[in-house]
Amino acid sequence: MSKIAVLGYGVVGSGTVELFYKNKDKICAKSGKDLDIKYILDIRDFPDSPYADKFTKNFDDIVNDPEVTIVAEVIGGMKFSYGYVKACLENGKNVVTSNKELVAEKGAELLKIAAEHNCNFLFEASTGGAIPIIRPLHVCLAGNDISAVAGILNGTTNFILTKMINEQMAFSDALEMAQKLGYAEQDPTADVEGHDACRKICILSSLVFGKHVYPKWVHCEGITKLTLEDVMYAQSWGGEIKLIGSVKKCNDGKILPMVRPAFVCNNNQLSHISDVFNGVMVYGDGFDEVMFYGRGAGKLPTASAVVGDIAAVAKMTSTSISQTWADSTDDSFIADYKDDVVSIYVRANGVAAEKISEVFGTVEYLSRENQPDGELAFIAPAMQEKLFDEKLAQLGGEILGTIRVLELE
Amino acid sequence: MSKIAVLGYGVVGSGTVELFYKNKDKICAKSGKDLDIKYILDIRDFPDSPYADKFTKNFDDIVNDPEVTIVAEVIGGMKFSYGYVKACLENGKNVVTSNKELVAEKGAELLKIAAEHNCNFLFEASTGGAIPIIRPLHVCLAGNDISAVAGILNGTTNFILTKMINEQMAFSDALEMAQKLGYAEQDPTADVEGHDACRKICILSSLVFGKHVYPKWVHCEGITKLTLEDVMYAQSWGGEIKLIGSVKKCNDGKILPMVRPAFVCNNNQLSHISDVFNGVMVYGDGFDEVMFYGRGAGKLPTASAVVGDIAAVAKMTSTSISQTWADSTDDSFIADYKDDVVSIYVRANGVAAEKISEVFGTVEYLSRENQPDGELAFIAPAMQEKLFDEKLAQLGGEILGTIRVLELE
Repeated sequence: MSKIAVLGYGVVGSGTVELFYKNKDKICAKSGKDLDIKYILDIRDFPDSPYADKFTKNFDDIVNDPEVTIVAEVIGGMKFSYGYVKACLENGKNVVTSNKELVAEKGAELLKIAAEHNCNFLFEASTGGAIPIIRPLHVCLAGNDISAVAGILNGTTNFILTKMINEQMAFSDALEMAQKLGYAEQDPTADVEGHDACRKICILSSLVFGKHVYPKWVHCEGITKLTLEDVMYAQSWGGEIKLIGSVKKCNDGKILPMVRPAFVCNNNQLSHISDVFNGVMVYGDGFDEVMFYGRGAGKLPTASAVVGDIAAVAKMTSTSISQTWADSTDDSFIADYKDDVVSIYVRANGVAAEKISEVFGTVEYLSRENQPDGELAFIAPAMQEKLFDEKLAQLGGEILGTIRVLELE
Repeated sequence: MSKIAVLGYGVVGSGTVELFYKNKDKICAKSGKDLDIKYILDIRDFPDSPYADKFTKNFDDIVNDPEVTIVAEVIGGMKFSYGYVKACLENGKNVVTSNKELVAEKGAELLKIAAEHNCNFLFEASTGGAIPIIRPLHVCLAGNDISAVAGILNGTTNFILTKMINEQMAFSDALEMAQKLGYAEQDPTADVEGHDACRKICILSSLVFGKHVYPKWVHCEGITKLTLEDVMYAQSWGGEIKLIGSVKKCNDGKILPMVRPAFVCNNNQLSHISDVFNGVMVYGDGFDEVMFYGRGAGKLPTASAVVGDIAAVAKMTSTSISQTWADSTDDSFIADYKDDVVSIYVRANGVAAEKISEVFGTVEYLSRENQPDGELAFIAPAMQEKLFDEKLAQLGGEILGTIRVLELE
C-alpha cells in the first residue's frame, strides 16, 4: 500500500482529492499499486468534508510517516511549499507538484535532492495544466534533437486576446470580463505581464536543454500595450496575436527563451487556440513538429496532471534519469534577444512611405478597416533586433506599436 | 550495454538507424544506458551502407543473441513480423514496433506474451506516427475516465481532403497528386477506404477501454464517395469534412469505434489539421479535452516514435502495467453504430422542402455557390441512425450523399 499526502486543499488540492477518489480503481490498476490518500494538509478546518478524518495542520505528521511515499504539493507559491517539498524529498518521499513558481525557481536544486535520495520530483501539472507535455518531451521525443518550443502557456491572456480578436473588446474590457469570470486575479500582473508564461517557458527550457533557466534571465513582455488596431492588422496579414513563450537553440550554442506577444500565422496551429486553452508546439529533427493542446489551468484539468504523476511515480522504483536538468550559475548560455533575427510589425503615425522605404527597404504593408490618414502599418524585413531598433529610431513620426512575428521553424 | 536489433531496413527501418546514430548521445543520456545497434535484419544487401557490418539475413542471429535486449520491428505487415515479434518476446526481448496491422490484429496476444516473459511490447509508432499519443493516454491521463477519442489518423486521406478543400480539386485528381508525391500507394485502398485509420482506432480503443477491438468489428467508411459539393456545403455550415476514426463510451457500457468521413465544426481543433498531418483529440472527466498533433507518417517522424520507445524501454525493468489490454473473444461490447444518435447531412435532388419538413421536422439548410435548382442540402436533427435511414427512405427523389456530423463532447 502506497499512501499519498496532499499538501494544500485549495482549488487544485480539492480537485486532486476529488479526481483521485472518482477514478481510484482505474488509477490503482494503471499504477499496479493499492494507492490511497492518508493525509490532506491545510491550515483551515473542513469538518463537513467526506475526507474530514484525513486533514492535518501538522506537516510533521506527513514527513515523519514512513507509510507516506507520495506527496502532492498543490499549495502554490514558495513560502511553505519550498521547505515542505525539500523535506519530503530528503526523506525519500516522491513529490509531484503543480507549482510552476517552485519548479522555475528551485527545480534544479529539488531534482538534485530527489536523485540523492532515490526518489522523484515530478511536475507535469506545472506547465500546460492538463496537457501532457513534460513526459512526452523527455520520454516520447527522446530520440530527437529538439530545436525549439513555442507555446500559448497562459489561459488568462489567451482568453483576453480571444475577446479582443473575436468580439473587438478593448484590452481593459476583456481583462475586466476575465476577472468577473474568475479567470484573472484582482491583481492580474502575473498573467498580463507574462510572468506566469515566463515561469512555464523556464521549466520547458530547462527540461529540453538540460540547464536551469531562471525567470530573471528571460526577456518578458506582456499584452497590456496591445490594441484592437494591432489585432486587425494581424488579421489582414493572415494571423492572430498570441502571447507566446518560446525557446530556441541559436547557432552559437546558446538558447533564447523569451515571452512576448507575437504575430502568429494562420498556418501555425497555435493561431487557432482560443479562450482559456493552451497549446505547446515543439520542433525537432526527427518528428519535425508536434503540438499539444488542452486546458492550461482549472481545478480538475490541473488535478488530472497531478493524479497522472501520482500514478506514474507509484510505478517508479528509482529516480527518473530523463526528467532532470543541471543547475546553472550564470546566464552565459542565454542569448541576447536583441541579437536575434526577427521580422517586426510596426504601426506608426505621420511617417511617409518614402521614409519607410529609405530606412527599411521593401516592407509588407498591412491595412485595416477605417484606417485613418497618416497611419501606416507594415512588417519590416527580418534583421537583428538591435539593427531594427536603430532603423526604427530613424523613422521619425509617432511609433504606435511594434510586435514581433513568430518564426521558429 | 543494451544491444538493439532493427528488423527491416525499409523507409522506417533506415530512418530508425539514421535517427538513432544522429542523436545517440542524447538517447543514451535520456535512457541512462549505453545503447547500440548490433543487428539490422533485411533480405537485401547493403554493401555500401555505413552500417554494412550490422546486416544479417538470419533472424536466428538476433533471437539467439543474449546481448540483444531490444528489438525494433519495422518490417510492417504480418507475414514475417508476427512470428519474429512473438519469438523475441518469448525469449524475453523487449520489442518496439511501428506496425499498426500487427498491433491491431495481434496486440492482446503479444502483450500477454510480453507480460509472461517480463518484457515489453511497445508501439508508440503504430498510431499517429511521430505524435506522442500511446504513452500520454495511459500514463499522463491515467487519473481520468476517458469518454471518447477522435482523430485524423491517416495522412494520405487528409492530404486528399485538404486539396479538395483548399484547391477545389476533385477526389480523383487529389488522389493522383498524392500518388505522384509518394503519399499514396499505387493501390490506395487501405488509405482511402479507411482501413489504415481503422487499425489505428482499434489500437487506441483497446488501450483506452482495456479490451482488444479487432478491425473486423469496426464499421469503416472511406472518402471515395465525397464530392466537392459536399466540401462546399460543409464550409457553409462552418466546418470541414475530415476522415475521423473515433471511439466513445456508450450509456449501456458498450463502446462504439468507427471510421467515417464527418462534418467537423470549425471550433473543433481537428478541423484545422491539414495536409499529411494527423491529430488526436481525447475527451475525459478531469482534463476535459486534449489534442495531440503532428506528422502521422514518414521516415523520420515514424522513426522518432520508434527511437523514443527504444529509449523508454531501455529504462524499464519490468513489464509496463498500464500499456496493456485483455483479449476479447466476441464483439458483444461493441455497440451497433445504427443505434447511435447522430446528426446527418443530406444532399438530395428533386425533393421538396415540404417533404423534408414532413419527414424530418425542422432541419438546418445549407447553401453553396452555383447551387442548381432542385438540389437541397440540410442537416437532419440528431436521432438514432436506423431511424434516420427509415426517414431518408421516405424522402423520395435522388439522395446524392449523406455524411455524419462529428459530435463526441
